Amino acid sequence: MSMTAASISVFEINLNALSAILDKAEAYAQTKKIDPAVLPNARLFPDMFTLTQQVQSACDLAKNCGARLAEIDPPRYEDAENTFGELKARIAKVIAFLKSLDTKKIDASADREITFPIGGPNKGQMKGADYLHHFLLPNFFFHVVTAYDILRHNGVELSKRDFIGIIPMKIS
Amino acid sequence: MSMTAASISVFEINLNALSAILDKAEAYAQTKKIDPAVLPNARLFPDMFTLTQQVQSACDLAKNCGARLAEIDPPRYEDAENTFGELKARIAKVIAFLKSLDTKKIDASADREITFPIGGPNKGQMKGADYLHHFLLPNFFFHVVTAYDILRHNGVELSKRDFIGIIPMKIS
Repeated sequence: MSMTAASISVFEINLNALSAILDKAEAYAQTKKIDPAVLPNARLFPDMFTLTQQVQSACDLAKNCGARLAEIDPPRYEDAENTFGELKARIAKVIAFLKSLDTKKIDASADREITFPIGGPNKGQMKGADYLHHFLLPNFFFHVVTAYDILRHNGVELSKRDFIGIIPMKIS
Repeated sequence: MSMTAASISVFEINLNALSAILDKAEAYAQTKKIDPAVLPNARLFPDMFTLTQQVQSACDLAKNCGARLAEIDPPRYEDAENTFGELKARIAKVIAFLKSLDTKKIDASADREITFPIGGPNKGQMKGADYLHHFLLPNFFFHVVTAYDILRHNGVELSKRDFIGIIPMKIS
């Protein structure tokens, strides 16, 4: 099992799935004549993130994880998105960044100590494999699933297959 | 990076976190004098699973994954839970089952072909590492996060730390 497969491949598949989910949400808003600003600003509770923030957070987690496992400084992307098109462009930018990373560095990162900001002045430190499985993937899926849940709660017709995306599964 | 760490450890940490989240939800219902049946039956949209079903699904995914990676038949647990106490007992049963598995078998499962039901007459087939990262973990987190989202949507005070649980992170 390679660290690249366990990180970059997961992000690519699920970010592509998220982009396709946003396509369905955009089509739904057009069909239902919903103001284009409504769904990107929807949230499940007043002090939770909006759909836009959920997508931005998922993007940042994937970008930062890839960069840290590949031993480079994560690039900073401004949170300026307001539309489905802009959110999909953000996802595409992150996927392109992930594809540019040194997979040999990532594959060698399982036992390397990763240091990362955790809010405020504090930094967290974990071994690469623990960072990926106990911090990064749960956080990443937290935001992707909540984006999905916001849209389902608002009536967009999605199934779990939309969330899982296109995976290397043989069906018999 | 071991398959056991990437699967069983993740399930244990996040199922324990889910159990603690259910404690907070139960306390919230008691404080607010909410009928005990309301939150276990809450859902984000009429054709989505209830909180109870989300917890049952997360439990089954963890149990089935552990069993399949360890090359044993997954035990079947009846879906008979109606209360927070019963849901927490289900989680505890799954964690005990996961602890009983042969970790050497699981660690040797990355390249082994795993065959699993995917609904109806169909079966999916994936290599162990792909099954874990592209099918199982996304599905598992789908249900744990949606359980969290249902409770947040209903006003239970939770933070992402409740979801992440107790992880092997040093803070500096």
